[in-house]
Amino acid sequence: MAATTRPNRITGILAPVLTPFDRNLSPDAKRFAAFARMLTSLDIGLAPFGTTSEGNSLSVGEKKDLLDALAGTGIDMARVMPGTGACALSDTVDLTRHAVGLGCGGVLMLPPFYYKGVSDDGLFRSYSEVIQRVGDKKLRVYLYHFPRQSGVPLSLPLIERLLKAYPGTVVGIKDSSGEFANMEAMIRAFPGFDVFSGTEALLLKLMRLGGAGCISANASVNGAVMVELFRRWRDPDAEGLQDALVAFRVALQDFPLIPALKALVARASGDKSWRITRPPLMDLSIDAEDEVIKRLIKAGFPV
Amino acid sequence: MAATTRPNRITGILAPVLTPFDRNLSPDAKRFAAFARMLTSLDIGLAPFGTTSEGNSLSVGEKKDLLDALAGTGIDMARVMPGTGACALSDTVDLTRHAVGLGCGGVLMLPPFYYKGVSDDGLFRSYSEVIQRVGDKKLRVYLYHFPRQSGVPLSLPLIERLLKAYPGTVVGIKDSSGEFANMEAMIRAFPGFDVFSGTEALLLKLMRLGGAGCISANASVNGAVMVELFRRWRDPDAEGLQDALVAFRVALQDFPLIPALKALVARASGDKSWRITRPPLMDLSIDAEDEVIKRLIKAGFPV
Repeated sequence: MAATTRPNRITGILAPVLTPFDRNLSPDAKRFAAFARMLTSLDIGLAPFGTTSEGNSLSVGEKKDLLDALAGTGIDMARVMPGTGACALSDTVDLTRHAVGLGCGGVLMLPPFYYKGVSDDGLFRSYSEVIQRVGDKKLRVYLYHFPRQSGVPLSLPLIERLLKAYPGTVVGIKDSSGEFANMEAMIRAFPGFDVFSGTEALLLKLMRLGGAGCISANASVNGAVMVELFRRWRDPDAEGLQDALVAFRVALQDFPLIPALKALVARASGDKSWRITRPPLMDLSIDAEDEVIKRLIKAGFPV
Repeated sequence: MAATTRPNRITGILAPVLTPFDRNLSPDAKRFAAFARMLTSLDIGLAPFGTTSEGNSLSVGEKKDLLDALAGTGIDMARVMPGTGACALSDTVDLTRHAVGLGCGGVLMLPPFYYKGVSDDGLFRSYSEVIQRVGDKKLRVYLYHFPRQSGVPLSLPLIERLLKAYPGTVVGIKDSSGEFANMEAMIRAFPGFDVFSGTEALLLKLMRLGGAGCISANASVNGAVMVELFRRWRDPDAEGLQDALVAFRVALQDFPLIPALKALVARASGDKSWRITRPPLMDLSIDAEDEVIKRLIKAGFPV
């Protein structure tokens, strides 16, 4: 079972922590840290600056400040896996170094995603340069495979090369392709490599195969149920928990996900400023929010 | 004719200036400025930090330093149009402000390019926020439409909204779609809007229609011929100049373009360090370089 065979490794459920902005569209470190603490109290690990965090809509300086705020609230940084992969080598190195310095248990690293159709040699070179420049044995890199969004897929041969070159440093992946066959292939090909699903819809299947958990957008709002399934995936009612997770996803599927999740947090917290997104996203319309709520209630979720 | 109807506007040929790196992969401001000066001496305008410049592989701080170096060599900043569009609103604002402060005649602005499938509302919001935050009447924004690379196309209705909201600020576009029909549609729909082709292969056709010029990768190496065509597009031998430009492109078409251009600059200057690219790109192999040279010679270019 994942949790027992991976001492000192991050496993379980991680939330790409939603990033709160103020009216001026600046990140609000205080609310961010408070929200993150709430998540950790539910045993949800933190993957700030992921896609759902609007991580790429933040500058490196803004991300460093937010990470400092997390560390400042006494959160166990060993369960924090910030997204640090940027288009510019210098940015990725800068933020990764900062994360390692704060004791983060890992970093989630997108490849540089501006150039499309780059070679595996170029991607290998990219990850290599970052790892060598950070030059810290405490660095744990989780690759981030999200072809639909990044436009830059990470192939199995590339992963194999990275694992051979940097054993103990390149340790896992978040696979947001939604393709279970790809996750299965990685688990079979690379023993000890921690495969996280980017969707909780595949959590049970993945755990049965020896996966490490999931890092999913919805964990900021519905993470407690995911944690429950992660803990009890061998139990007879595991399928029921999995079905509940899927029902939640289905209720949200017709809406822009990040704005919808932020609207739900705003509603739950009574703090409307949680609705604010940075461009190019748009805040959820009130009509859409009403419809999201209707669908969640219909699907049996208390809102 | 473009050049006469647009006083105080950037027209003609601009080069997305290649960025030289040292052995440590750091940008070399001195060589950068010297190369840029050479280009301006040929009457080639400067569009640093474009796609060919590996602009998105540089941090905002690195780009500011390079821009400072240009200004420091006494280059006429009115013909400099740096790429300033980043994924993070804060980064785009920061670099754009810096460019305006240095007197740049315009900025070339990619939309935020991490999120795909974003709405026109979201893109409008994005450009609006940047323009309002920079808040300077001297700002001239050239949109950068490069769907194949950015994954985020700029639609005609979006451009129309931006022109209505920010007349005199949003003034043109670089269209790297390669689709002449799109360039033609913009020229017809938006009088006074400066349309630059992203490829010199369409330069003559575009000039005949009232286009503003071109901003093309190859201008760093073959820009003098483009300038010649821009100046003499009404002359009887214009078709011959256009054919020569296409022949140059064809000679390079089977090679990774940025590494190939850098290898050519290295060869012409005798400075091998020009060959260096930042990941995720790879430096051109020596074999490929030999082949590039062969094809250029065969196509009639003195190398």
